[in-house]
Amino acid sequence: MRNDAALDVFFRPKSVAIVGASSDPKKPGNTALKNLVTMGYKGRVFPINPREDSILGFQCYKNMLEIPEPVDICVLLVSAELTMQVAKELVERKSRFNDLSGAICMSAGFRELNTSEAKERERELVQSLRSASIRLIGPNCLGTIDAYSGFNTNFDIPHYPKGGLSILTQSGAFANSFLFWAEGLRLAGLSKFASIGNMADVSMGELLMLLKDDNSTRVIGLYLEGLPNPREFFETAREVSAVKPIVVMKTGKSDVGATAALSHTGSVTGADAFYDDAFKQAGMIRARTVLEFFDTLRAFERQPLPDGNRVCVLTHMGGPGTICIDEISATKNLQLAKFSPETHNAIKSICAPMANVGHPDGYIDLTAAHYEKLHNQVLQILFREENLDMVLQILAPSAFINQRLIVEEIAAAYQSQPGRKKPFLNAVTFGHFALEARQGLEDAGLPTFEYPDMLARVAGNMASYAAFRRTTAGGA
Amino acid sequence: MRNDAALDVFFRPKSVAIVGASSDPKKPGNTALKNLVTMGYKGRVFPINPREDSILGFQCYKNMLEIPEPVDICVLLVSAELTMQVAKELVERKSRFNDLSGAICMSAGFRELNTSEAKERERELVQSLRSASIRLIGPNCLGTIDAYSGFNTNFDIPHYPKGGLSILTQSGAFANSFLFWAEGLRLAGLSKFASIGNMADVSMGELLMLLKDDNSTRVIGLYLEGLPNPREFFETAREVSAVKPIVVMKTGKSDVGATAALSHTGSVTGADAFYDDAFKQAGMIRARTVLEFFDTLRAFERQPLPDGNRVCVLTHMGGPGTICIDEISATKNLQLAKFSPETHNAIKSICAPMANVGHPDGYIDLTAAHYEKLHNQVLQILFREENLDMVLQILAPSAFINQRLIVEEIAAAYQSQPGRKKPFLNAVTFGHFALEARQGLEDAGLPTFEYPDMLARVAGNMASYAAFRRTTAGGA
Repeated sequence: MRNDAALDVFFRPKSVAIVGASSDPKKPGNTALKNLVTMGYKGRVFPINPREDSILGFQCYKNMLEIPEPVDICVLLVSAELTMQVAKELVERKSRFNDLSGAICMSAGFRELNTSEAKERERELVQSLRSASIRLIGPNCLGTIDAYSGFNTNFDIPHYPKGGLSILTQSGAFANSFLFWAEGLRLAGLSKFASIGNMADVSMGELLMLLKDDNSTRVIGLYLEGLPNPREFFETAREVSAVKPIVVMKTGKSDVGATAALSHTGSVTGADAFYDDAFKQAGMIRARTVLEFFDTLRAFERQPLPDGNRVCVLTHMGGPGTICIDEISATKNLQLAKFSPETHNAIKSICAPMANVGHPDGYIDLTAAHYEKLHNQVLQILFREENLDMVLQILAPSAFINQRLIVEEIAAAYQSQPGRKKPFLNAVTFGHFALEARQGLEDAGLPTFEYPDMLARVAGNMASYAAFRRTTAGGA
Repeated sequence: MRNDAALDVFFRPKSVAIVGASSDPKKPGNTALKNLVTMGYKGRVFPINPREDSILGFQCYKNMLEIPEPVDICVLLVSAELTMQVAKELVERKSRFNDLSGAICMSAGFRELNTSEAKERERELVQSLRSASIRLIGPNCLGTIDAYSGFNTNFDIPHYPKGGLSILTQSGAFANSFLFWAEGLRLAGLSKFASIGNMADVSMGELLMLLKDDNSTRVIGLYLEGLPNPREFFETAREVSAVKPIVVMKTGKSDVGATAALSHTGSVTGADAFYDDAFKQAGMIRARTVLEFFDTLRAFERQPLPDGNRVCVLTHMGGPGTICIDEISATKNLQLAKFSPETHNAIKSICAPMANVGHPDGYIDLTAAHYEKLHNQVLQILFREENLDMVLQILAPSAFINQRLIVEEIAAAYQSQPGRKKPFLNAVTFGHFALEARQGLEDAGLPTFEYPDMLARVAGNMASYAAFRRTTAGGA
């Protein structure tokens, strides 16, 4: 599949019309306008509302035919019935002005209702827009965000930090849950977001191709319920995976889950075993839980790929350390690193006598005798160890540790690596009490996690993907 | 096994001596004293320090023999070597005054070092204290907390809300991670805490029996690496499970994890399959992840047991709802409830036409057309439905929802249930943005979770335990 340049209009339109724009601040048609401003969109904005002169300072138009300037894209925030009427206006406008190339239909009331009338309505909508070469995202969706261009139709998200994460989703609410969850502690930065709902026209695969060539996208998160053309999609996904990691959350483990998906976006989920296998073949990472989906995306967004699967665990807490080692061993895609005698001795020589270095291989427990500077010293030795591809650290700042200082020491050790850095993931386990340490590490570009077992799972996912990349032509 | 009343001294001593008390605020021997005050301990406190007259207003003594009043328990915060000397003083004191009945040895440097010298030292310590009928918790531990009596030797935790959760742990740091994690949002209240380290004398099983009869303990969390007498332990556990839920996090899925445990607390983990089966037989809930451990404990602490395993899911978001339904079906211990025609029609009649009621059974998606009061109305109907044992709700307060108001409506519906209430669990998925809603629900006694799949797992764990209880004589 080739990247269709026409889809770029969904992320960087020069102008946008909002059908269903409203002056009532409690309505999505108002928030959608406001969020374009707060996200920093610089293009032209045309609210369509027959009863208002202007909304939020933007001049209103009565319908799509009245706008006297070129319109790149139209956002539809009206009922399903009204959508069908506006679709006719869009086709008419295209034939007169030849300007519109995209439409985003947020409205529900189509195939997901699973009635023949609603399905027919969706078919008509697509047919009529296609006849005018207007591509459609939706219906039944939250549309798109481009954090770099500032284009934003997602009425829940007023602004977001720029970054390397892009999301394609069949559930706007699920993706928004992630964005809100990550925003408080600045855990992720966004490139592109597309909530594509019923996928009546523009498909998941087409958007994947667009992200493949998007320079600011480092990792792609997918929420999938089902696909109309899975085989075509997986060919595309394999091509994209050869360049960027794709992390996927897929429902439909069970037939009952499939019933819920059908009512949600009209998706037929398909046999789970087929999907599970297809994800592996395509080099995609399937998350087993929502948290694993969130955490794996964040690791890929902030850290480079490992050169191999040999990890070590550095901690000062025997219990959390043991939990992490246990999960590493259960995760078949990681190996505990065997330190060289030089590394072993260098670490031994600076730790307290009762510290555990190397039981088992790759494990270091500094014990409660740890202190800020010791983490820096041990990490510097680890980052130089050739038999090691990835460093995992588990921290909990007790009352005897200065949180600001330990962050400085850790960040200094990380920065001291010359050239390409080893991936470095941290678990910080003391919740709100450890907020300063956690935020400090995040702001230094070091992704943090809350649970020592999840640390191991995320590292395993990074190693699996890196292994896939080494098997592809365009490898790391 | 019978509950040994002598162990009560570890939680409600009338007086405590602290060997290794320090005037340096950066030392555990100082924090330990301070935390007794902040936790509200009302007993007598005797710091032992030969070089100080008083610390934090408490008169110091040069050694254990000098204290002129009865001493119930002694906390040891000195090196392993010095611990052996003090042990002699304890035995001597006991023979003279016949007062001491417990000792908590926090110090490391015993069996966990896995040297013959260190193992011998631990054997000697136990032998000498046993000869004087002084029971020992530790060594290599953080000791105990009783949030009700205010007794506290855990130098990381200065205070904690009272509640129904008790924790027994082979890793102090792991249990503290949970306490800190939960404290920020007041997600849990504590009854008793015991970090028992190497378990040289007082065993996990003995403390379990004590918690069985502890009125303020509603649920018990265990962190286990390995047990010297697993069969005896599991007999006890089964007896306790018949009265209170026990949730367990057990490492040793792999042989490599076992090596880490051995270096941590000198524990031999034993075959995982044996433990997995034994937990089931004993009616204990084994958590698969750290987060599942935390979340399951919180559910049991705040909510009653379900009468059966029929659940429903109420949400306004198709994606998170589908994820939850999918996990419910994957979790073999839950069933989706089949609503009576009355319930179905009553809910249908108050929801938006495009709301999904009952596809699949037990699933309600109010869609974005939801509003605060509607949750109250639908919940009231659900709480009256006889074919339903447990209600799960997934919320994300969008910009169009008043967080304070939706909490009021939900709490009102919950409170409106006459008599014994159905368990009610909520997922609130918008992270920091949803803090007001989440905190409001927690403060109303409704436990909240962040991820829709974890909501299903926690409900499954509650249903499994309730089923076990129905099979035991002392059943609910």
